[in-house]
Amino acid sequence: MREFVLLSLNGRTSEFDLNDLTFGRIDLVCRAVSSALFVSDHIRRDTNIYVFLNGSDNPPKMISFIGETIKDITPDEKTISRLILAALKKGRSLVLEQEIEVSPGIRVAKKSFEKFVKEKSKENKLFYLSKKGTDIRNLNSFQGLFILGDNLGLPKKTEKLLKNLNAYTISLGPAVLFASHCIILVHNEIDRK
Amino acid sequence: MREFVLLSLNGRTSEFDLNDLTFGRIDLVCRAVSSALFVSDHIRRDTNIYVFLNGSDNPPKMISFIGETIKDITPDEKTISRLILAALKKGRSLVLEQEIEVSPGIRVAKKSFEKFVKEKSKENKLFYLSKKGTDIRNLNSFQGLFILGDNLGLPKKTEKLLKNLNAYTISLGPAVLFASHCIILVHNEIDRK
Repeated sequence: MREFVLLSLNGRTSEFDLNDLTFGRIDLVCRAVSSALFVSDHIRRDTNIYVFLNGSDNPPKMISFIGETIKDITPDEKTISRLILAALKKGRSLVLEQEIEVSPGIRVAKKSFEKFVKEKSKENKLFYLSKKGTDIRNLNSFQGLFILGDNLGLPKKTEKLLKNLNAYTISLGPAVLFASHCIILVHNEIDRK
Repeated sequence: MREFVLLSLNGRTSEFDLNDLTFGRIDLVCRAVSSALFVSDHIRRDTNIYVFLNGSDNPPKMISFIGETIKDITPDEKTISRLILAALKKGRSLVLEQEIEVSPGIRVAKKSFEKFVKEKSKENKLFYLSKKGTDIRNLNSFQGLFILGDNLGLPKKTEKLLKNLNAYTISLGPAVLFASHCIILVHNEIDRK
């Protein structure tokens, strides 16, 4: 099982224009989902990605993409943005901690990133991807949850929380990369084991 | 200098619908261009990507994206597909071997992939990315042109041509990846040197 979580601080939580995904950086989220779930000839059925959107107007929102059961998805931004929009519409009136299914393999919840990682940390090792960490090529085990920020990174208090949860900070090289790029590199490292 | 070339066998060479980039797999081409030119906080000014479109109705077309001078580009599929469409429109009446500028850092030519790699091979080492090659992590030098196919791969006769041009076949791991994923992995390998 491979699991990724992306925190998008500005990611829109109300309806957005499918023709301008750069507003609220939904484009970036779409590429991260695509990188997590797809190889050239099939869907990675062993992979989940959890996206947290903290932008206006209705935060927080968590959208889960479950590789094992997901259907009707292609790797392009247009298709994935439509799925995100459908999730936001369906999840408009959720109360805190409530979660519903949007379509096979896609769920939406009103839940905070911080709550989610606290829960996950009870049974999973946390890996926080950051330029300042230990080189991923020195890791022996990749069992755990890989945590990524968007172009804004993670807030200081969230980084502190991750530290308190004993998250392991890992680096992928000297360049500052998009979340979607980081996911490709993590997958490759695990594929090679 | 880092150089990539992508051969898209079905890539549209006449006008396409900006709202359905999966037709003719322009989506795949856009993601490859995005992966080649962008890191999170800037454009890779040391990188060029040459895209060859061999689909209907007006093949072959070569679109060059030159990192050093390119302007007004963002990493999303929508923006890059608009640039490709503008290049195809401007290059509609080109004759064989003719090349024109579309906008800063973007050029379009009527030129075949085979002619291009033959010319490039005179002064550059060719690296052909394929599952069957030598692991990229065993390479010492990355100076050269990295050659990628799209989801259809390269035709047998093109693979034979590359062999005759002494192209070095390199592998990035066990999974069959999209061109855009391969570019991320090559960049990372060079970033680490």
